[in-house]
Amino acid sequence: MPLPLVNFCSVCGAKVALRVPPGDSLPRHVCDACSTVHYRNPLMVVGTIPEWEDRILLCRRAIEPRRGLWTLPAGFMELGETTAQAALRETMEEAKARVELGEVFALLSVPHVDQVHLFYRAALLDAAFAPGEETLEVALFGENEIPWKQIAFRTVSFALRHFFADRKAGTMQFHSGEILPPK
Amino acid sequence: MPLPLVNFCSVCGAKVALRVPPGDSLPRHVCDACSTVHYRNPLMVVGTIPEWEDRILLCRRAIEPRRGLWTLPAGFMELGETTAQAALRETMEEAKARVELGEVFALLSVPHVDQVHLFYRAALLDAAFAPGEETLEVALFGENEIPWKQIAFRTVSFALRHFFADRKAGTMQFHSGEILPPK
Repeated sequence: MPLPLVNFCSVCGAKVALRVPPGDSLPRHVCDACSTVHYRNPLMVVGTIPEWEDRILLCRRAIEPRRGLWTLPAGFMELGETTAQAALRETMEEAKARVELGEVFALLSVPHVDQVHLFYRAALLDAAFAPGEETLEVALFGENEIPWKQIAFRTVSFALRHFFADRKAGTMQFHSGEILPPK
Repeated sequence: MPLPLVNFCSVCGAKVALRVPPGDSLPRHVCDACSTVHYRNPLMVVGTIPEWEDRILLCRRAIEPRRGLWTLPAGFMELGETTAQAALRETMEEAKARVELGEVFALLSVPHVDQVHLFYRAALLDAAFAPGEETLEVALFGENEIPWKQIAFRTVSFALRHFFADRKAGTMQFHSGEILPPK
């Protein structure tokens, strides 16, 4: 989802100019009619790593990008939410799954798409789940069943890989990192 | 910094309507002329807890909100950045300080202002620092010198409080939480 172009001021409808405002260091879209500066900033994508016994719940995407590939339930954080609320909402929307949230597990910057991805650990409250509108299929996978070659996003692979490694080591901890553009 | 109103489409300049797009669950600003959906999402504020020996660097704000109060160097993440790059840039811009980043220390949701605040631990590379354009004064504070009643933001108090508690306990760890509106 690329950010929409800023040709016009969303407040008053006048054409905007691209220039560095006084006291700023980067060019911004500035409206000379109503003085609004239109900043554009990275977006947060928030989700969960839902556990049921020793298996993890994954969703097969019904929408682009990466339609048909598997992902953790996650999506764009909405206004007025906490990251925890966003994680619970996305897990319900994409997998119709009720979870109890655990700790924040992974924080990943993805600068070439202007996103920051955040995953919480989560425990499924029951084995009831079903595809939401943006999901083709939901299923539980043991570590040896994860479809590694069909994972939709590298942030999801990062979270899953560290999850299984930490579980094996018996020391679950927080991980941060960055995902650089594919070469 | 409240988000600007969306009365007009930033792409084509037509008036927008507020309604729930097909397949969505929340009202969005939709342009019927060019079909753009204008999402609005929370913003990330990223900064550091800069350490020099046993003291912490704080900045006294030269700008609103909370002009004259003390804060950790932090600011809005920019497009194309990682959270780590944003933390380093803000520390340089606000305190003219060069640091080596450590671990992510705190992640706080502030839903009533649509922000998520993130603080890294950081080690000052030398004792050279100076106020940037948005700063009146920069200084190092020992734990007993922190001006607790003059801290600009509750996320900064949260980060500092947990930092000193963890340091005392000898176990620095990642903290997450949320800051609810003042009653």
